[in-house]
Amino acid sequence: MDSNPKSLEELIKEFTRLPGIGRKTAQRLAYFVLKNTRDEAVSFAKAIVAAKDSIRFCTECFNFAEEELCVICSDTKRDRSVICVVERASDIPIIEKAGRYSGVFHVLGGVLSPLNRVGPDDIRIRELLTRIKDEVGEIIIALNPSVEGEATTLYLTRLIKPLEVKLSRLAQGLPAGGELEFTDELTLSKALEGRVAID
Amino acid sequence: MDSNPKSLEELIKEFTRLPGIGRKTAQRLAYFVLKNTRDEAVSFAKAIVAAKDSIRFCTECFNFAEEELCVICSDTKRDRSVICVVERASDIPIIEKAGRYSGVFHVLGGVLSPLNRVGPDDIRIRELLTRIKDEVGEIIIALNPSVEGEATTLYLTRLIKPLEVKLSRLAQGLPAGGELEFTDELTLSKALEGRVAID
Repeated sequence: MDSNPKSLEELIKEFTRLPGIGRKTAQRLAYFVLKNTRDEAVSFAKAIVAAKDSIRFCTECFNFAEEELCVICSDTKRDRSVICVVERASDIPIIEKAGRYSGVFHVLGGVLSPLNRVGPDDIRIRELLTRIKDEVGEIIIALNPSVEGEATTLYLTRLIKPLEVKLSRLAQGLPAGGELEFTDELTLSKALEGRVAID
Repeated sequence: MDSNPKSLEELIKEFTRLPGIGRKTAQRLAYFVLKNTRDEAVSFAKAIVAAKDSIRFCTECFNFAEEELCVICSDTKRDRSVICVVERASDIPIIEKAGRYSGVFHVLGGVLSPLNRVGPDDIRIRELLTRIKDEVGEIIIALNPSVEGEATTLYLTRLIKPLEVKLSRLAQGLPAGGELEFTDELTLSKALEGRVAID
């Protein structure tokens, strides 16, 4: 028999629905909520609905936004001549954290994947092409170096090359702090291919 | 600069407050909530507040309960002559899952720990002693085999022994599926100490 009261069991079930959260972790999280004050529980609950209600997609780059434009697209200091193409909106904070990029973004919303029936019309490629106007000088493709990511990069390259805009992609090579000994052959061959001249 | 909208950032912060959830996991959970339908988000939010509002402690054993008595104490089929003493209410489902116990429980709400200033009056020892009446035939102490758990077991033993009730504790020894090679000395010495005769 189940020794948990119904409302506790419900909460555990809700936590179990979250990605990467198993039954044991869900229980731990639910017990934590019970130990919290009521105010804390209410603030947690409100944050969930508030985020769901107020977040939409930026009409320009399809990043998460609360207004029509996201915080990046509405920032006048950003360089509008460079567009960095990412797979998901959640990739943007990662690139932002590196602190080296001052251009704008474009969220594809996926990568080409024939196996999962994702074709060119299912991701925001058309929207990207319409954004490439005179003011845009460079497109940086920042997709994951996976099979699908590579295929999508190749597909985008073919479409963008004729538009006579500077086109680049993230460098592939050794991760910072990595060791040659533990690097796989593909990464190593990419690092060799992309070797940088020492002046 | 932060590229996340405010309400998304708030939600990520709420998730970060949960035990064992770091910034990256919190982000993943928040993105998941955004991908959900509004109904799913609302049901998650409601479950949090509902659990917080309707869960209280069983007046008999201090397990989580929605009524005055928890589901175990209000179950007439449970054997009221055996009380299993656990540290936390969250230990009860673990013992229940083993499926071998049909008695009732008593939640101490902690263990003796002079370093954390937890003394006998800070946990529910008095409440346990008042529950030991004529109908109670056995007390099973099921505290963690940690230093504090052992000390508390010893303390309870001294108090309960004079009451002339059968007193036992969970067996210590090799975990099921474990290997001798990887067993620490203390566990092995406990397993030797508690060796069981083969008839």
